[in-house]
Amino acid sequence: MAEFVKVAVDAMGGDNAPVEIVKGAIEAVNEDHRVKVFLVGQEEVVKAELTKYTYPEEQVEVVNAAEIIETAEPPVMAIRKKKDSSLVKALYLVKDGTCDAYVSAGSTGATLVGGQVIVGRIKGVERPPLAPLIPTAKGCSLLIDCGANVDARASHLIQFAKMGSVYMEYVMGVKNPKVAIVNIGAEEDKGNALVKETYPLLKNCPDINFVGNIEARDIPEGKADVIVCEAFVGNVILKMYEGVGGVLIKKVKEGMMTSLRSKIGALLVKPALKNTLKAFDLEQYGGAPMLGLNGLVVKTHGSSKAVEIKNSVLQCITFKEQNINEKIKEKITMEES
Amino acid sequence: MAEFVKVAVDAMGGDNAPVEIVKGAIEAVNEDHRVKVFLVGQEEVVKAELTKYTYPEEQVEVVNAAEIIETAEPPVMAIRKKKDSSLVKALYLVKDGTCDAYVSAGSTGATLVGGQVIVGRIKGVERPPLAPLIPTAKGCSLLIDCGANVDARASHLIQFAKMGSVYMEYVMGVKNPKVAIVNIGAEEDKGNALVKETYPLLKNCPDINFVGNIEARDIPEGKADVIVCEAFVGNVILKMYEGVGGVLIKKVKEGMMTSLRSKIGALLVKPALKNTLKAFDLEQYGGAPMLGLNGLVVKTHGSSKAVEIKNSVLQCITFKEQNINEKIKEKITMEES
Repeated sequence: MAEFVKVAVDAMGGDNAPVEIVKGAIEAVNEDHRVKVFLVGQEEVVKAELTKYTYPEEQVEVVNAAEIIETAEPPVMAIRKKKDSSLVKALYLVKDGTCDAYVSAGSTGATLVGGQVIVGRIKGVERPPLAPLIPTAKGCSLLIDCGANVDARASHLIQFAKMGSVYMEYVMGVKNPKVAIVNIGAEEDKGNALVKETYPLLKNCPDINFVGNIEARDIPEGKADVIVCEAFVGNVILKMYEGVGGVLIKKVKEGMMTSLRSKIGALLVKPALKNTLKAFDLEQYGGAPMLGLNGLVVKTHGSSKAVEIKNSVLQCITFKEQNINEKIKEKITMEES
Repeated sequence: MAEFVKVAVDAMGGDNAPVEIVKGAIEAVNEDHRVKVFLVGQEEVVKAELTKYTYPEEQVEVVNAAEIIETAEPPVMAIRKKKDSSLVKALYLVKDGTCDAYVSAGSTGATLVGGQVIVGRIKGVERPPLAPLIPTAKGCSLLIDCGANVDARASHLIQFAKMGSVYMEYVMGVKNPKVAIVNIGAEEDKGNALVKETYPLLKNCPDINFVGNIEARDIPEGKADVIVCEAFVGNVILKMYEGVGGVLIKKVKEGMMTSLRSKIGALLVKPALKNTLKAFDLEQYGGAPMLGLNGLVVKTHGSSKAVEIKNSVLQCITFKEQNINEKIKEKITMEES
């Protein structure tokens, strides 16, 4: 039997830890026999959660960690001081080769800092980006970068385009993925200084399928597979998705409750609507991978429920089996030669 | 009788010109006796449109302009070469004092360039921002800047905050409007270099009601009245509104058409839904004012229909009657002293 894909799960991170985290991890091992989870957290608490479930014991291991990093803590300080926290210990499991991947719903800042400092970058990668999958009318796209590196330079964006292409091709199975750069117009000469500098470099990249500028309005349509942008802009895009989606769906529900006639209609419409809107739920795709590290680091939403944790753990399998990091290494080195 | 508020309308600009432009202008004069429109465009074409309507003749004037600036033309060149275009002539009507305001659904670039070059900046204003109203769960907010000045500096953002506050207070009637700066986190020390530099300056501004950072996800909730950001980010926010909104509403409609049961429900739900979603329609608020110029320049969507043109013309009345430009002058000068 092949070796397990081993995933260190921060059992204490996120708004719904440890209940939903442990639940999601167990759902993952029950769904796929190729994965083993290392639940990192306060041993007694985690074990108490585990008593709720049945699962193959060889696929679950508990690793004790006494401390917890809170979301509001300054990341660098937290990583440095809380050596016995679930987040730090889980990252070390990847660093020392015990695990292939890390999944946490805890502090984004601490995960981003710890990913770089503890797990470390692949040689040649300048800045490891955070790259969530976002739902579109056609399926999903990879938004890269989305919060790891504000004030990025053109050379970083070029690497994002390359790493994102590898991810979409080999993890998501999109042949020759279309790469676009976020801009404020479709014409080549538009944009701010960063985009104007990056555009011709992307255009001359031989090993990506660059299709030009993408305006933000075309992102939800799914007009490109890899959406390259600087982290501040990426963060705004991701959060506008959440914000506009949330308010609109609330308005739709309110609208349906305004009269007796519409209330009856709502009852009839509800099941069909639920299905289509599910395709637009950010959480179904699992967490955002931080690419370009010596191992896979996955950050899920702070509000993650079991389903997002499960999907995040399962996505580690493809990542490992497809040797994504080897492919990234090749592509980045090719650039440098 | 008081003098008219005089609005130069670019009758040939936009995807639906001249039909919808003339229609909207006429609806405005028929709705409000305080406004007079100067329809600038090819005289015969405009007059042919006018024969469709009845309206008070003293409120409508046609100004001939033989040329048309297309959306795809490079703005600076277009402004320089096409002196007899509807867009340029309409701007000159404001410049020479014949009109108080300008409304166009034509080229955004040409309007932004022409606004600065022809109409000119108020003394002390460094960069005139484009500031659309965006719908929120609570009403609407002003997004400033949204496409006029990429790579802005902190001093520009401070002026945006001041001008936006004047607009929301005196045009929209929001007492002591809440000003927030777009950032990637709620904490004071987050952000890119520009935001980190601007935050303490906004905090120390005595004449605005600064409430701190706003994350993009909270914008649709209406957590601030004046949303300050650099133009590239503002453009992304505005276009994500359009993009996510458009795709979600399409999905809702598709969802309703998936079964016989849901189709019947859709019929019952439709009228109520239409009403609530109308409140989230970007176009109902009229165009985006470009603030800080010696006159009011309003840019409406390229796809504007009559209702947006009408609302854009009508918003010029409040702008004029409230002496917004005088108030902006005062606030900017106060800053400098």
